[in-house]
Amino acid sequence: MTTSSPLSPYDNLSPVAQAAYRARAAATDIAPLPRAAKDDALLAIADALEVRTSEIVSANAEDVARAREAGTSEAIIDRLTLTPERVRAIAADVRHVAALPDPVGEVVRGSTLPNGIDLRQIRVPLGVVGIIYEARPNVTVDAAALCLKSGNAVLLRGSSSAYSSNTALVRVVRDAIGGAGLPADAVQLVPGESRDSVTELMRARGMVDVLIPRGGAGLIRTVVEQSTVPVIETGTGNCHVYVDAETDIPMALDILINSKAQRPSVCNAAETLLVHQDIAAEFLPRALDALADAGVTVHADERVREHAEGTKATVVAATPEDWETEYLSYDIAAAVVDSLDAAVAHIRLWSSGHTEAIVTTSQAAARRFTQLVDSTTVAVNASTRFTDGSQFGFGAEIGISTQKLHARGPMGLPELTSTKYIVTGDGHTR
Amino acid sequence: MTTSSPLSPYDNLSPVAQAAYRARAAATDIAPLPRAAKDDALLAIADALEVRTSEIVSANAEDVARAREAGTSEAIIDRLTLTPERVRAIAADVRHVAALPDPVGEVVRGSTLPNGIDLRQIRVPLGVVGIIYEARPNVTVDAAALCLKSGNAVLLRGSSSAYSSNTALVRVVRDAIGGAGLPADAVQLVPGESRDSVTELMRARGMVDVLIPRGGAGLIRTVVEQSTVPVIETGTGNCHVYVDAETDIPMALDILINSKAQRPSVCNAAETLLVHQDIAAEFLPRALDALADAGVTVHADERVREHAEGTKATVVAATPEDWETEYLSYDIAAAVVDSLDAAVAHIRLWSSGHTEAIVTTSQAAARRFTQLVDSTTVAVNASTRFTDGSQFGFGAEIGISTQKLHARGPMGLPELTSTKYIVTGDGHTR
Repeated sequence: MTTSSPLSPYDNLSPVAQAAYRARAAATDIAPLPRAAKDDALLAIADALEVRTSEIVSANAEDVARAREAGTSEAIIDRLTLTPERVRAIAADVRHVAALPDPVGEVVRGSTLPNGIDLRQIRVPLGVVGIIYEARPNVTVDAAALCLKSGNAVLLRGSSSAYSSNTALVRVVRDAIGGAGLPADAVQLVPGESRDSVTELMRARGMVDVLIPRGGAGLIRTVVEQSTVPVIETGTGNCHVYVDAETDIPMALDILINSKAQRPSVCNAAETLLVHQDIAAEFLPRALDALADAGVTVHADERVREHAEGTKATVVAATPEDWETEYLSYDIAAAVVDSLDAAVAHIRLWSSGHTEAIVTTSQAAARRFTQLVDSTTVAVNASTRFTDGSQFGFGAEIGISTQKLHARGPMGLPELTSTKYIVTGDGHTR
Repeated sequence: MTTSSPLSPYDNLSPVAQAAYRARAAATDIAPLPRAAKDDALLAIADALEVRTSEIVSANAEDVARAREAGTSEAIIDRLTLTPERVRAIAADVRHVAALPDPVGEVVRGSTLPNGIDLRQIRVPLGVVGIIYEARPNVTVDAAALCLKSGNAVLLRGSSSAYSSNTALVRVVRDAIGGAGLPADAVQLVPGESRDSVTELMRARGMVDVLIPRGGAGLIRTVVEQSTVPVIETGTGNCHVYVDAETDIPMALDILINSKAQRPSVCNAAETLLVHQDIAAEFLPRALDALADAGVTVHADERVREHAEGTKATVVAATPEDWETEYLSYDIAAAVVDSLDAAVAHIRLWSSGHTEAIVTTSQAAARRFTQLVDSTTVAVNASTRFTDGSQFGFGAEIGISTQKLHARGPMGLPELTSTKYIVTGDGHTR
């Protein structure tokens, strides 16, 4: 053939582009692998993480020491820290991914066309997945395991604050998959600690098939606005609990407190309480006391504040900013609404489209709320905290998509795949 | 409530943003509509198109006259022209869409979780769909019908060369859906004929949920690179026919000629022929004659040219550009390859990932080719021309996605939807 390959030489390419091309080649190799080959590699990763725990923990200690020097908050240092126990937990998660069914090859739909052609739509890997994430080094291994299981190569761009940890983890992972006979380049840390490598990743259209930013709102907005590679937006959760006029008050209290306070730092925690005016007088004093007991400060509109007197609540006056704030803390915004439709209108206006819950005894209200609220998840008489890959039974999750294209809500292994059509005939022409 | 609506007043917004906000409001209204309401509106559109044919045809005549003045080619003028017969065909297509099943509300998956929560994933409309397209005014009505049926509002940005036609068509459509009790703003022509309105549409993230560019490679590249709204890339088809060492030669000739010459101007027409070296001497002379009979010029590599002598073929020497060219004309590139794997490597390098066909009698070759070729559609012993929504039995198609996210291959009504999860408990907390 007279064709010349644009895939070589790598030498003229930037380090990020070289990594992307090597990932593309590895993706091509692993895409057709049967489940057993991928699972063997995953189990090898889990074993290696346990065998080489001390290497990982001591690399992590460097990151932690640097973070402390930089005056990082203890909460973030806790998220950054790897202990032998945490490394064992990460290894257990990898074994869990190995036990999940392989999404690749699943026949999504199929039929015999009127002309006799057999048509099948089957799941195939996406190819090269880029993950841009902050702090937590466990994401490094989780993402690698999920991408490998779904037949994808992965380019990992962690935060520079976890660089030593991520470097050690990726070294262990690459050694393990290489030892299991898979191309080590299926898992790579994006070279370079500067912002430039993120920018380059975002412009690597054709080399990278999808970018998944995981982290703060600023990071996600930057990636969404600047990337020419398709992006899956994840994680911003301004979630609402709406207490309907007809409601079981103890249930509403349970769901409110669980949604807000069981773990306030996560994206499926509630950030705003909306209460129907007909139940406000009965519900709000008890809710404000319960929130106070849970240590939650209430950013309340005027109509909520009318019910605060005589309660234990810490109440501040809400400003318009409160309706759109994802506190991720022991704070909640609260408003009284005239009707279910007013609650829906408030949610449509301010929600990030993650999860909204209604607490109601009315079938009509439940039906109308689920029909009109357009978020990844609508909960009826259940906590917002259930929007989660493990809770949904997906076994694992690469993130929670808050966009409408490709995947919406918790993303498991099938969401890391695309599909292709196989058309089989015996000489069919049009 | 103390919240203030960012949705009003529209007055300070640009005309494009105003259209987008009105589309968002209309989308909210039509999303929960039952099938019957949407079908009634579609049938009203079909009726109105037939009743008001002369108004449409005379508006179209203005576009055609302007195109002729500007020296536009007859092929493009033909694509632009609307006759009473073509308007009737468009109306028939709308009735056909009305007859298709409603994708909205379909339960995609569902289960009862171990804790007793009922989990359902259901199809919901995307919201506001933007279509940027060139020339053909029938797309205006097709896209409106498909978006309405799937519960979406649509913003149509046709080419300025079809402005009068599109204006007339959208007027007829809006009158019809308004008369059927649906919000007319569910279908809007994007105001303004300049490039600026396209740019504004591409930056309308949050107001527009997805952009689908339909047209030439330049248009699609611009939208992909500049849009912050998620894009579905469509239509570029550098399709390959690979004739394997073990093959049924008459079948291979049929499939080659059908793929290339049955309708060369469409994206699923073949643009490159690859022939295994072991069958080249037997197959190529007959193939070159058959291509000559079909009026096809062959851009051949050296090894193909060796077999051209004594044939009727018009042969020119292929350059590297030929391997990546989508001719859309009576031209085909042709190369001899050493093996099936070399054919796959050529395809991976040069294909746009639309459709590739293998002609083989070998089960092993068919299996390997379908496994290794990563395109929207892989055809075994069938023409590339089958990659098409109607051929696949989808009833209609909004375009053929050549990207891997969200939709891949012909996109029908389900591809115009997203999903949401409904979580139903009776007081469940974590």
